[in-house]
Amino acid sequence: MPELLFPLDSAKRFTDQEKVGHNRWHPDIPPVATVRPGQSFRVHCREWFDGAIHNDDSAEDIRDAPLTRVHALSGPFAVEGAEPGDLLMVDILDMGPIPQESGPLAGQGWGYTGIFPTGNGGGFLTEQFPDAYKAVWDFTGRKATSRHIPGVSFTGISHPGLMGTAPSASLLATWNRREGALIATAPDRVPPLALPPEPQDAILGGLAGADFDRVAAEAARTAPPRENGGNQDIKNFTVGSRVFYPVYLPGANLSVGDLHFSQGDGEITFCGAIEMGGFVDLHVDLIKNGMQTYGVAENAIFIPGDTPPQFSQWLAFSGISVTLDGEQRYLDSQLAYQRACLHAIDYLTRFGYQPEQAYLLLGAAPIEGRLSGVVDIPNSCATVYLPTEIFDFDIRPSAAGPARIDPGNGAPKATMR
Amino acid sequence: MPELLFPLDSAKRFTDQEKVGHNRWHPDIPPVATVRPGQSFRVHCREWFDGAIHNDDSAEDIRDAPLTRVHALSGPFAVEGAEPGDLLMVDILDMGPIPQESGPLAGQGWGYTGIFPTGNGGGFLTEQFPDAYKAVWDFTGRKATSRHIPGVSFTGISHPGLMGTAPSASLLATWNRREGALIATAPDRVPPLALPPEPQDAILGGLAGADFDRVAAEAARTAPPRENGGNQDIKNFTVGSRVFYPVYLPGANLSVGDLHFSQGDGEITFCGAIEMGGFVDLHVDLIKNGMQTYGVAENAIFIPGDTPPQFSQWLAFSGISVTLDGEQRYLDSQLAYQRACLHAIDYLTRFGYQPEQAYLLLGAAPIEGRLSGVVDIPNSCATVYLPTEIFDFDIRPSAAGPARIDPGNGAPKATMR
Amino acid sequence: MPELLFPLDSAKRFTDQEKVGHNRWHPDIPPVATVRPGQSFRVHCREWFDGAIHNDDSAEDIRDAPLTRVHALSGPFAVEGAEPGDLLMVDILDMGPIPQESGPLAGQGWGYTGIFPTGNGGGFLTEQFPDAYKAVWDFTGRKATSRHIPGVSFTGISHPGLMGTAPSASLLATWNRREGALIATAPDRVPPLALPPEPQDAILGGLAGADFDRVAAEAARTAPPRENGGNQDIKNFTVGSRVFYPVYLPGANLSVGDLHFSQGDGEITFCGAIEMGGFVDLHVDLIKNGMQTYGVAENAIFIPGDTPPQFSQWLAFSGISVTLDGEQRYLDSQLAYQRACLHAIDYLTRFGYQPEQAYLLLGAAPIEGRLSGVVDIPNSCATVYLPTEIFDFDIRPSAAGPARIDPGNGAPKATMR
Amino acid sequence: MPELLFPLDSAKRFTDQEKVGHNRWHPDIPPVATVRPGQSFRVHCREWFDGAIHNDDSAEDIRDAPLTRVHALSGPFAVEGAEPGDLLMVDILDMGPIPQESGPLAGQGWGYTGIFPTGNGGGFLTEQFPDAYKAVWDFTGRKATSRHIPGVSFTGISHPGLMGTAPSASLLATWNRREGALIATAPDRVPPLALPPEPQDAILGGLAGADFDRVAAEAARTAPPRENGGNQDIKNFTVGSRVFYPVYLPGANLSVGDLHFSQGDGEITFCGAIEMGGFVDLHVDLIKNGMQTYGVAENAIFIPGDTPPQFSQWLAFSGISVTLDGEQRYLDSQLAYQRACLHAIDYLTRFGYQPEQAYLLLGAAPIEGRLSGVVDIPNSCATVYLPTEIFDFDIRPSAAGPARIDPGNGAPKATMR
Repeated sequence: MPELLFPLDSAKRFTDQEKVGHNRWHPDIPPVATVRPGQSFRVHCREWFDGAIHNDDSAEDIRDAPLTRVHALSGPFAVEGAEPGDLLMVDILDMGPIPQESGPLAGQGWGYTGIFPTGNGGGFLTEQFPDAYKAVWDFTGRKATSRHIPGVSFTGISHPGLMGTAPSASLLATWNRREGALIATAPDRVPPLALPPEPQDAILGGLAGADFDRVAAEAARTAPPRENGGNQDIKNFTVGSRVFYPVYLPGANLSVGDLHFSQGDGEITFCGAIEMGGFVDLHVDLIKNGMQTYGVAENAIFIPGDTPPQFSQWLAFSGISVTLDGEQRYLDSQLAYQRACLHAIDYLTRFGYQPEQAYLLLGAAPIEGRLSGVVDIPNSCATVYLPTEIFDFDIRPSAAGPARIDPGNGAPKATMR
Repeated sequence: MPELLFPLDSAKRFTDQEKVGHNRWHPDIPPVATVRPGQSFRVHCREWFDGAIHNDDSAEDIRDAPLTRVHALSGPFAVEGAEPGDLLMVDILDMGPIPQESGPLAGQGWGYTGIFPTGNGGGFLTEQFPDAYKAVWDFTGRKATSRHIPGVSFTGISHPGLMGTAPSASLLATWNRREGALIATAPDRVPPLALPPEPQDAILGGLAGADFDRVAAEAARTAPPRENGGNQDIKNFTVGSRVFYPVYLPGANLSVGDLHFSQGDGEITFCGAIEMGGFVDLHVDLIKNGMQTYGVAENAIFIPGDTPPQFSQWLAFSGISVTLDGEQRYLDSQLAYQRACLHAIDYLTRFGYQPEQAYLLLGAAPIEGRLSGVVDIPNSCATVYLPTEIFDFDIRPSAAGPARIDPGNGAPKATMR
Repeated sequence: MPELLFPLDSAKRFTDQEKVGHNRWHPDIPPVATVRPGQSFRVHCREWFDGAIHNDDSAEDIRDAPLTRVHALSGPFAVEGAEPGDLLMVDILDMGPIPQESGPLAGQGWGYTGIFPTGNGGGFLTEQFPDAYKAVWDFTGRKATSRHIPGVSFTGISHPGLMGTAPSASLLATWNRREGALIATAPDRVPPLALPPEPQDAILGGLAGADFDRVAAEAARTAPPRENGGNQDIKNFTVGSRVFYPVYLPGANLSVGDLHFSQGDGEITFCGAIEMGGFVDLHVDLIKNGMQTYGVAENAIFIPGDTPPQFSQWLAFSGISVTLDGEQRYLDSQLAYQRACLHAIDYLTRFGYQPEQAYLLLGAAPIEGRLSGVVDIPNSCATVYLPTEIFDFDIRPSAAGPARIDPGNGAPKATMR
Repeated sequence: MPELLFPLDSAKRFTDQEKVGHNRWHPDIPPVATVRPGQSFRVHCREWFDGAIHNDDSAEDIRDAPLTRVHALSGPFAVEGAEPGDLLMVDILDMGPIPQESGPLAGQGWGYTGIFPTGNGGGFLTEQFPDAYKAVWDFTGRKATSRHIPGVSFTGISHPGLMGTAPSASLLATWNRREGALIATAPDRVPPLALPPEPQDAILGGLAGADFDRVAAEAARTAPPRENGGNQDIKNFTVGSRVFYPVYLPGANLSVGDLHFSQGDGEITFCGAIEMGGFVDLHVDLIKNGMQTYGVAENAIFIPGDTPPQFSQWLAFSGISVTLDGEQRYLDSQLAYQRACLHAIDYLTRFGYQPEQAYLLLGAAPIEGRLSGVVDIPNSCATVYLPTEIFDFDIRPSAAGPARIDPGNGAPKATMR
C-alpha cells in the first residue's frame, strides 16, 4: 500500500500541519519528502481554500473568498535522480474525498461549487452573472447530488485540478515577465487580466525569514496552468491517468492539490468543479532526457484513465463567435464557448431552473466542451455536450414541450457590498 | 426507402445537373423540392469544390482552390407547414460516400485533406504552415488510409459538415452588417477576417436574370457557421444524430452538403476533414413554436448519433494561451488550442512524420479538441486527444524512445507563386 | 469500390438468378467466383427463407416456414492460393439492407422476427412458447421499429448471421457421423435433436445431375455453427469486424448469408434476429499456415467492429440452472440463460407487453447474454442485459411501479394445425 | 460518510472478530445489525477462505483449500420494515481492497487466483486441468499485475462476488430438497454434483448450542447462486450498481462477501476471480410489494455501474457444443463455452504462455463470455472476448506470426497426494 508522505489532519489549518505545503510556485520551496522512481505514495490534499467555504445555505463565503490563499498544495515531492530535461511520469493510482470522515471541511462527505462575483475573481460568464452563488453537493459513494440544484445526480469524474513540477528560476522569470506585461496593459481591470506575485497569504512550506520574503515576492500564483502543468483543471485527468511533466530543476519537485469530485470541461464558473479535499495516490518514474526525445518541453501530456463514467446520450449546444450585442469577432473560440454555454443555460431555464443553477451545473457536471470549428472565418464554433442521463427528467426537445421541475429554493446568492 | 429528391450525376458539373443547388445563403433561393413533416428522403451531395481537387500527388489544386465556388449545397428543401418560430427537427438516417462508384470525383472511393496556403484561405496554423499541402485518403469500407500519411488507419466518423435552414432577410442583413464591420477593421488582411458577399461563382439554384444579380450581391458566403447552423463542421454530427434548427422563413428551406468521411474536432487545416461527395438520408419533422418554447432562437442544438467509432485509449496534449513568441494573452482558447495542436505535431515528428503530415492527420482523424480550462487567468487550457489505436505503432512515451516510421514521400506540397 | 461478384435481382427467386448460391455445406459445391488475397468485393444476400415470410399481420408464414430451404447462401468464393492449413482473414467492410429498394422482400426497407412453433423448428423457449408468432420491423435509416411491438426503437447492430469456409470431405464426414449419432438417440423427437442431410429443397450452385444427387445426399445442413464458422449468429460480428477462418480445402470456398439487421445475444427465438436480405462488402487475405501457427484449427476467431450502437445503462436479469418445475440441474448454462430470459419476459409483461412480444424483443434487440457463473456447483448463473435506452419509457424498478404501455394488437399468432 | 457496521481486524481470524459473520444460508442466523431504508453503511469483508491462501510461490494452499469454510460472509443486516414480498434495493456505493494495509491477508495490497484440483473442488476445465495452480496478483491503485503471469496488466472491474438476502425456511427446504435429489443421482462423484449442508466449519454468527447444531445441519452452502442472489459472481456487479433482491423473511437479512478485485465472465477457474478482502459501502431501500409488482420473485435483477474499465478492441474465440472427443451434444452452452475457453487457452500458448497461466488469466481478467447462439440445433455457440489492451504485446493474428513472451517461472503447481 502506498506510504502516506503528506498527512493532513482535518481538524487543523493547512499551515498548522505536521508538514506544511505551499500556495505559490517557486524553485526554492524545499521538498517535503523525497521519493524514488518506481515508488507509490499517498498524499492528503486540502481543498483549495483551506476550509473557508462552508456547508450552508449562504453564498457570503464565496463572495468573500480569500483568493490570495489559494491553492493549498501538497508537496513538493523531490524525485531521486530527476534532472532538467527528463520527463517525470506520474500515475494517478487512486483518489477520492477524505476517507470515512464527516464534518465541516469540504471533502468530508460533501463539496461545493461557486460563482465568484465580478469584484472577487469573476468567472467565464461574469458579465451575465456578476453576483456570488453557491451550491453544496453531497457525496453518496461516487455520486453527487445537491440540495441547491434539484433533479440531477451523476457519478463524479474525479481528478486533481492541479498538479505539476516546480519551475526553474528562469522559467519563473519568464512567467513573471510575460504576465506582468499583460497586466500592464490594463492594470485596474476588474477582474484583473492576471495575478502578479502576492506576498500576502503566501505559504511556502518550510521557508522562513529572509528566504520567505524573497520567495514570496517572486513566486508565481497558482491559478493559471503553465508549462509545468499546474492548474490545468482537465476533467478527464482521472484515476488511471498517466501524465508526463517536463523536469525543470533537479528533483523535479512535484506538487498536487485542488481535488475535484467532478467538473465539466472548462470548469466554467471558475470555482466550477465540485471542490473538495481528500487523498491521491501517485506513482512516479522518469524518462531520462525525455523532453528532447519526445519534444515535450513546455507542456504536459497525458493518457487519461479508463474508468470515467460512461454516457451514451448527449444533448449538444453550439455557439459562434458573435457577442451578445451582435458584434462579430474573428475566430474567438473562447467567445464561441461562452455563447454555447449561455444557450445551454437558457435552454435549461425552460425546464424551471434558475439561470444560476444551470450555470453552476455546467461547471460541476461531467459535460464536454469541444472546439468544433476553428477555421471557418469569421466564426469559431464551440459546442457543449450535456449527458442526458444525469437528469431525473427527459431534457430532449419534443413536441410535448419541456417538463417543469421544481427549482426549490435555488442556489444561495450574495451581492458584493 | 427514402425517395431521392436531389440526384447528382457524377459525370456532370454541379451546375449541369437535373436540379441545381446553391453555394450562398439567401432567403430568395427557391426550394428544389417540398417535403412533408415525417418524410424521409435521400439527397446526393457534391464535394465542396465540385471536383476541383484531384486524386494525385500534386498540391497545386489545393494551392489554386477556387474558394469563391464553395460550398456546393444540395437544396433548399421546403418543409410543409414550417413557419418562423418553429424548430425543424432533422434526423440523419444514413450517409456515406457515393455508393458503388469509382472515379476521379472525391467521394468515388476516396477523399482528400488539404492545407490551404496563407494566400488562399490559410488555416488554423497558417503562420507555421504557409504553403499548400494535400493528402489523398482511400476508403476501404468505413476505414480510411492514405498513401501520403503512412502508419495510420481509422474508421471514419462521417458527418455532413454543413446543414442549415435559410436565413430570413433580416437575419441575412444582420450577418452582412456585422461581418462587414469586422472586415472594415482590416480590409487588406491576408487571409481576410471574413468574406463579404461575392457574386463571382455564385450558384443560386433556379434564380436567373435580375433576381440572380440581386441575390448574388446580397447572399452570404457559406464558410462560417451562423445562427442557422450552417458550416458547423461538428465531428460528432454523425448518422443517428437528431438536430433542431430554428426556422426563419416559411418552409424553413433546409440545405445540406460538405460531406466529411472523417474529421477531427476543429477541422484544423480548414480543408481539414476528409472531403467527399456522397449521399445523405434525412427525416424531417417540426416542433411548432419550438424556438420560444425551448429558447433555441439563434443556435442549432443536436443529439449525436450512437455509433461513432469507439476508442478507449488516448494521448492528450495541452496548450495554454501564450504565443510562440512568449507573449501572454488573456484567456484565449483559440490560441491555447493552436498551441496544443502544435505540441502534438511536434511530438509526432519525433516518430518520423513530416510536420505537414502530422498537421493533416490532426485535421482528418477522429481526434478530440477540448476546452479544458477557460477561467484560470490569464491562461486558457485547451487539450487535443489522439486515439492511440489509429496508429500502427505505439505512440505512447516510454523509456525506450519513439519508434521511427518511414514517412514515405510525404504529403505533396505547392508554394504560392 | 468493391466489385459486385454475386448479384441478386429482388424480383426473382434465389434459384433463378444469374449466379446461383447454395443452402448446404459440401466441398464439391463449385465456386461462383474467384478472388485474390487483398481483394474487396460486394455480395448480395437473400434473406434466409428466400421471400417466404411476408410483411403482413399473419404468422401463418412463420408457422409453415420451409426449413428445408434455408439458408440461402451467397458463394462459394474461391480465394487464390488458399490451401488447407491457412487462415482466411475476412474483413466486413460494409453491409446493410437492400440499398434503395422498397418492396415485398425482407430487406427492402423492413425485416421480421419469428417464433417458430414447436412442430416446425421450435426455439429457445419452445416449451413456454409452442405457437407461431411474428413481428415485422421497419427500418428508418439504421434504426428499427415495429408495429407489432410498440414502445421500442433501436439502432441495428447489423451483421451476417452466417459466414464460413467449406468443409473438407473428411470434416463433412465427421459432422455427419457425430450429428447422426446424436439424432439416433431420439430419432422421433419434436423438435429434432439435429438435422441430417436433406436432399429436398437442396440448392447446390452449379451442380446438376448425378453430382447434384450425390452431394445433396451428403451435404450438411446450414443451421448449426461448426468448425468452419457457419451459422454462428454472433451479435457483435458487425461492420469493421475481422474474422479468421480455418481453410479446409484449396480455395477455401467462402460463403455468406443470413443477414441480420439486429439481434440479441443468442438469437433466442431461433428466427430471432431481424431477418433481411441485403449486401455485404468483404475483403479477404491469407495467413499462410495460420491454423498451426495460431492453434486455430477448429474454430473461427474474430475482432469485432468498433461502431456498435453504444448504451450506457442496462437492466440485467439473472437465471440459474433450476428448471421451472424446480428440478436442480448441474451447471447447465443453457438452462440458466433460459431462466434469465423468462425472468426478463415476465418482468416486461408487468409493463403491459404480451409475453410473445417480450420474447420476440429479446431475440431482436441488442441485448447481451452473459455466462456469469459456470463453476459454482450446482448452479450456473447466466444474465441477460437489456439496454434501457431502447424503450420509450423507463423500465427500471421504482417505488412508483411500472408504467403501463399499450401493447397494441400484439404480435400476430398462428397455431399448428 | 457511511457508518462502519461490520468491522474486521486484519490481524484476527474471522471467528475472533467483534462481530461474527456466517458461511451458510439460514433464516435463523441472527442479524449483526439493523439498518433503515435510506441508510448508507460500510461493511468490511474477509476474503472467502479467511486467510488460508498465502502470498507465496506455492500452490499447496490451493490444493488443500478448506472448502467447508467458505464463504466468510459479513452480515446479516436486517432492514427495518422489510417484509416478505418486498424488493430490497441495494446500491453499491463504493468498494475496494483493505484500505491502506499491507500484509499477509489477501486484500492487503494483493489477491490471488487459483485452479482447484479435481479432488478438491475442480473447476470449469477440470478435466483438462486436474492439478492445483495459483497466481498472486499485486494491486497498484486500481490495476493488477502478477509475477506468475507476465505480460498483462488491467484495471480491476471490482465487485462483490456474493450478496443476497436470507432464504425463508420453506425456500431453504426447497434448496435442500432439489440439490439433494441431484446429489443422489451420483453420490460419489468427484467433484460432487452439489454440496449438501455441512456442519463442519459452519460459522453461524451469534448462534450457539442447540440452535447452532440445528441450523448447521440444515443451512445451505454458499457456493451456488440461488433465488436470493448469493454467489452470482457477476463480473459487472461493480461500484454504482443497483440490485433488487426478493425479500423472503422479515428484515430481509442481507449478507455480502467474496470480494473480487477483478474477474472474467464465468469466473472459470472456480477460484477464478482475483480474490481479496476489503470493504464495501452499501445503501439500502425498499420497494414495498415489489416482488409481485415487478414479477421478481425468484431472481435478482440489477442495473450495472457506469464506471467499468473501457476497452474498444477485443479478440473473440468461439466454441460449439461438441466435446473434445468429437461427440455431438445438443445445445449445450456450458460445453460451448468450455470449448471457446480452451480455444483461447490454446491460442495464448502460441505466444509462450503455459496453459495454466492462460486459464488463470481468463478467470481473472475482464474478459467477456457471451451466449452467442442457443437455438441452432444441435450446436450452441458461445464466445469469449479478450480485451487486447490488457496485453503488453499485440495478440492479434498476423502474417508475421505471434510474438513470443517469456512466461517466467510460470504459475506454481501442486499435485494431489
